[in-house]
Amino acid sequence: MELSYYVKQRANEKDVGDAMVDLVAKLYPICRSITGDGVRQTLKIISQHYPVLVHEVPSGTKVFDWVVPPEWNITDAYFKGPSGERIVDFADHNLHVLNYSVPVNRKMSLAELKPHLHTLPDHPDWVPYRTSYYQEDWGFCLSHNKYMGLPDGEYEIYIDSSLKPGNLTYGEIFLKGQTENEILISTHVCHPSLCNDNLAGISLATYLSSIISKSPHKYSYRVLFIPGTIGSITWLALNEHRLPAIKHGLVAACVGDSGHLTYKKSRRATADIDRAVQLAFRDAEVEYEIEDFFPYGYDERQYCSPGINLPMGCLMRTPHGQYEEYHTSADNLDFVKAEALLDSLETYLSVFYILENNVTYLNMNPKCEPQLGSRGLYSHMGGNPDSGEQQMAMLWVLNFSDGNHSLVDISEMSGIRFDFIKIVGDMLVKHGLLQIVN
Amino acid sequence: MELSYYVKQRANEKDVGDAMVDLVAKLYPICRSITGDGVRQTLKIISQHYPVLVHEVPSGTKVFDWVVPPEWNITDAYFKGPSGERIVDFADHNLHVLNYSVPVNRKMSLAELKPHLHTLPDHPDWVPYRTSYYQEDWGFCLSHNKYMGLPDGEYEIYIDSSLKPGNLTYGEIFLKGQTENEILISTHVCHPSLCNDNLAGISLATYLSSIISKSPHKYSYRVLFIPGTIGSITWLALNEHRLPAIKHGLVAACVGDSGHLTYKKSRRATADIDRAVQLAFRDAEVEYEIEDFFPYGYDERQYCSPGINLPMGCLMRTPHGQYEEYHTSADNLDFVKAEALLDSLETYLSVFYILENNVTYLNMNPKCEPQLGSRGLYSHMGGNPDSGEQQMAMLWVLNFSDGNHSLVDISEMSGIRFDFIKIVGDMLVKHGLLQIVN
Amino acid sequence: MELSYYVKQRANEKDVGDAMVDLVAKLYPICRSITGDGVRQTLKIISQHYPVLVHEVPSGTKVFDWVVPPEWNITDAYFKGPSGERIVDFADHNLHVLNYSVPVNRKMSLAELKPHLHTLPDHPDWVPYRTSYYQEDWGFCLSHNKYMGLPDGEYEIYIDSSLKPGNLTYGEIFLKGQTENEILISTHVCHPSLCNDNLAGISLATYLSSIISKSPHKYSYRVLFIPGTIGSITWLALNEHRLPAIKHGLVAACVGDSGHLTYKKSRRATADIDRAVQLAFRDAEVEYEIEDFFPYGYDERQYCSPGINLPMGCLMRTPHGQYEEYHTSADNLDFVKAEALLDSLETYLSVFYILENNVTYLNMNPKCEPQLGSRGLYSHMGGNPDSGEQQMAMLWVLNFSDGNHSLVDISEMSGIRFDFIKIVGDMLVKHGLLQIVN
Repeated sequence: MELSYYVKQRANEKDVGDAMVDLVAKLYPICRSITGDGVRQTLKIISQHYPVLVHEVPSGTKVFDWVVPPEWNITDAYFKGPSGERIVDFADHNLHVLNYSVPVNRKMSLAELKPHLHTLPDHPDWVPYRTSYYQEDWGFCLSHNKYMGLPDGEYEIYIDSSLKPGNLTYGEIFLKGQTENEILISTHVCHPSLCNDNLAGISLATYLSSIISKSPHKYSYRVLFIPGTIGSITWLALNEHRLPAIKHGLVAACVGDSGHLTYKKSRRATADIDRAVQLAFRDAEVEYEIEDFFPYGYDERQYCSPGINLPMGCLMRTPHGQYEEYHTSADNLDFVKAEALLDSLETYLSVFYILENNVTYLNMNPKCEPQLGSRGLYSHMGGNPDSGEQQMAMLWVLNFSDGNHSLVDISEMSGIRFDFIKIVGDMLVKHGLLQIVN
Repeated sequence: MELSYYVKQRANEKDVGDAMVDLVAKLYPICRSITGDGVRQTLKIISQHYPVLVHEVPSGTKVFDWVVPPEWNITDAYFKGPSGERIVDFADHNLHVLNYSVPVNRKMSLAELKPHLHTLPDHPDWVPYRTSYYQEDWGFCLSHNKYMGLPDGEYEIYIDSSLKPGNLTYGEIFLKGQTENEILISTHVCHPSLCNDNLAGISLATYLSSIISKSPHKYSYRVLFIPGTIGSITWLALNEHRLPAIKHGLVAACVGDSGHLTYKKSRRATADIDRAVQLAFRDAEVEYEIEDFFPYGYDERQYCSPGINLPMGCLMRTPHGQYEEYHTSADNLDFVKAEALLDSLETYLSVFYILENNVTYLNMNPKCEPQLGSRGLYSHMGGNPDSGEQQMAMLWVLNFSDGNHSLVDISEMSGIRFDFIKIVGDMLVKHGLLQIVN
Repeated sequence: MELSYYVKQRANEKDVGDAMVDLVAKLYPICRSITGDGVRQTLKIISQHYPVLVHEVPSGTKVFDWVVPPEWNITDAYFKGPSGERIVDFADHNLHVLNYSVPVNRKMSLAELKPHLHTLPDHPDWVPYRTSYYQEDWGFCLSHNKYMGLPDGEYEIYIDSSLKPGNLTYGEIFLKGQTENEILISTHVCHPSLCNDNLAGISLATYLSSIISKSPHKYSYRVLFIPGTIGSITWLALNEHRLPAIKHGLVAACVGDSGHLTYKKSRRATADIDRAVQLAFRDAEVEYEIEDFFPYGYDERQYCSPGINLPMGCLMRTPHGQYEEYHTSADNLDFVKAEALLDSLETYLSVFYILENNVTYLNMNPKCEPQLGSRGLYSHMGGNPDSGEQQMAMLWVLNFSDGNHSLVDISEMSGIRFDFIKIVGDMLVKHGLLQIVN
């Protein structure tokens, strides 16, 4: 399996980065939330790229300490000012409504309305994104400039939403591999018109699924399209029996902005996934950032809770809350870039390439070096101080293939690219100099 | 127990720092040594603040490899020059006599006298502090300026001291806590008129005792006022059966100068006391220094000898020998400061606060996060990137309360102040989300 | 045993550094290879300094994955140009012939000859060193300047060499010590007229043998003079039963240039030999470099192969391939320096001094400090902040002689010179305060 090279070949057929942006654009207008038809529409569009199994979990289902909430849907929302025109209208931008607002149809003064209005004084042109999932409330989000210009007088408030027993909807793609061991990819689908957070993650998970499905792979891959927090809690509560099979995992979020790559380690800190991502970054020879685990952020909060503790990190670009556009109307189609999405996709594939190929070999001639020259693996001309990259890689793999060092270990120790180490390992296996331990 | 806050409240009633200086001043004129009436007078004055149990250990008592020496007392000492006037007089300053000098009453030439005179050529105005406890000798300490001006001629030497079977005297305060587990505080009482070393330590140990006695506390506190070296050896030899109960300890010395705080680690290097002091320093957001253990300094030499190896460090300000006034007449009342003494006292209390409250909790909902919002512990309004300090602290405590991490661990990992972690832990216990493991 | 001091005393009798250079000069003209009479002549000259046991291993002997090659000898080699004069002549410099060239006696055009010529375009005056041991080939090495001036026309090629069944020759010195535990020193003898690599190593190993033989020593020392790669493989294959006795080892190479000392760690990385060399460097207060193990370089490649894994590092000056003169005619008598050879020799002796004296003591008075003063080991005059180097060293040795810390541990922890720690340890043993554990 040559996952890491696949996308570049494919890029010759079609510009994958542009295609990823197209999918983001298609999903952008939909008003998603943690439940409701927005998620269903989203999964339907994803299914046009790769078939998604859609799960519906009834409201009221107990999931660990939580309960699946009532389903929320919305058709219209606005408020009119004293002169009767619609000042803020859900039809213009779905961020205008406090997500999960209960239905309202009332008149009130500006003073009564104000506590229900949310703005960003530091970015007076932007509309913030706010939610109130677990406490009944209603509200509007608008630009601070518009807010400052609101005239006194009577306002008419109208929110045509429904909040009633229904389902929590999530999607799942399962790509059966040669073994039962799984790699889990989780991405949240609950945010409305916000591009980097997280239509970018959705697009990446969709294209990953499609690409992986076309290559042979040792691991089985499970890709979850879930609402944040309640979605991962729901999946974990209903799938506890699956957890032992999950060997590695990544939460995909904020993968489309033009910042550099960032990896937030799993709670275990030194799991294979943590090491594989760091090697992939190192070998890509790009700028990157590594963060220690902390119990905040995306769904790694749940996957890395103490009673679950999966080896899952979060592979993103600029992290959660570290860019100003985060959770505002400025996280729009201009904010995500085709080359960033493609680079994120390739990085995910590189990480999976490392995990797929991280075997431990045993040197069959452990006493002194085997004679590489007689096997055509070593320059017959001696004396030259430059031993050549390939000979050096062979010596590293042979010396540390003692049953205790994996190829990841050897790549880390030697500083030699993982893919080169892997190629050299294959060559030595072919010559009977190595055997696989596990 | 809120030990760390106690002193600040108390500071409203009376200036504790000034009171600590007052006690130093009261003890300053007394001529102490490793035995004798000076120690007894000192313990009597301490007892006016908090009752001290006075122990007398007879000369000749075998204590490990050592023997309690004869008791030394002194009433007068001087030498007169050729013109008959007293040139150096014990009545002026008790440092003038070599501590433990045997009695002398002789006439001699300057040349004969000189080998018995001790000065500090680099600080010609200061009088050094010198002792000869374990080999019979006599001598005088004086300023180098005075020494240089000594005229030739006949000198009359007079030392009215006694060195005979008696006792080694030490004081002990025991503050019974809710458990048998002990925290040991040891401070040396053998130095004559030297303020930072160690009337400051004596004053601190006295005020600590008084404050701790007024608060409930889990640990029992044992405070020792002992002569250096022979005192700790004596106590350890006679109290070996007590050592298993000692869970943490500090040697208090040099705590009154205006330098920054310094902590010398225990021989174990990573004991709870070592970590608690470092957290207290970090949380105080002050400049400080950490030293690795080395087998020299104060009584940690004995407490951390290989066959004793107690988890005891030395919490001081400027260390032993690192200030020029050390062991000279310049370590006087001007050298110790009320604010430094108070800061040292508060630091000791902060350390004890951490040790008293360093429990390990178990998260009762370890699978995914518990729903904090429904318990009123989490803002119901979502989307805001700032989660708030308290929510963050709760997430840290919940995530790492897996039975393997104490609150000290969590405070270290998260970088969040220990006292805040503790408050948040209490809150989570109250809501049934945590239980104490130990 | 005072190995480290020996050479300095000896230096009073004779200049050891100059003597080492003399030996290099005597060995310089000989044309060595991995087999043949050059090695035999070399061992004969070494035997004039200390008797060497010469081993002959027949061609065709199977040694692990390798086979001892046919023996190579050479008497004459040159090529003549169109005008008939000898352009390149083995008699001028033995590097001129590709080492292990098969016999040739042919005429050919310059174009046919060129693929057999080796030069160094970056150093146009130097002649490179090239070999072809394991694939039959022939060739000449010459300066790039001469190469550029070769006229077109017919060339006469003559190499009078033989390549036929014979032996691989190596030398061994065994210096029986008080125990069966061995220190192995290995140096390669296969290079022709190259001084730093490795006549310097040969000279050092010879003088080491001679000096060690004159002192009592706890360890047995085994010194191998072997051809690189095939020699160490041969010795290891025929001496596997000896490996358990080898406790420490060093590969001696490149020890004569004027660069600073370099140590390449054993594959084990924290073996006693690794720590002893680093202490010796530290205590010498010189500039030095430490390299992690990598599976390339000299015979440590074989000694540190995964199935052998001896605790052997490589103690050199400028490493293999890091100086421009490496494997060229510029690695000549000017390139090695008497003071560098002597410094290398003294460093080897210092390392052995540490290994010979690295005992673990048990403090016989582990509870509190023993009373050093009563034993005359401690200044009786107290109060002086300077405790003195010797008292400090005694306190370190006593405190950490708990059965778990060797003198190397204590020297590392304390920063105190190993030889001083050792002297102080002896003193404390004499006073009954320490006993040897092992």
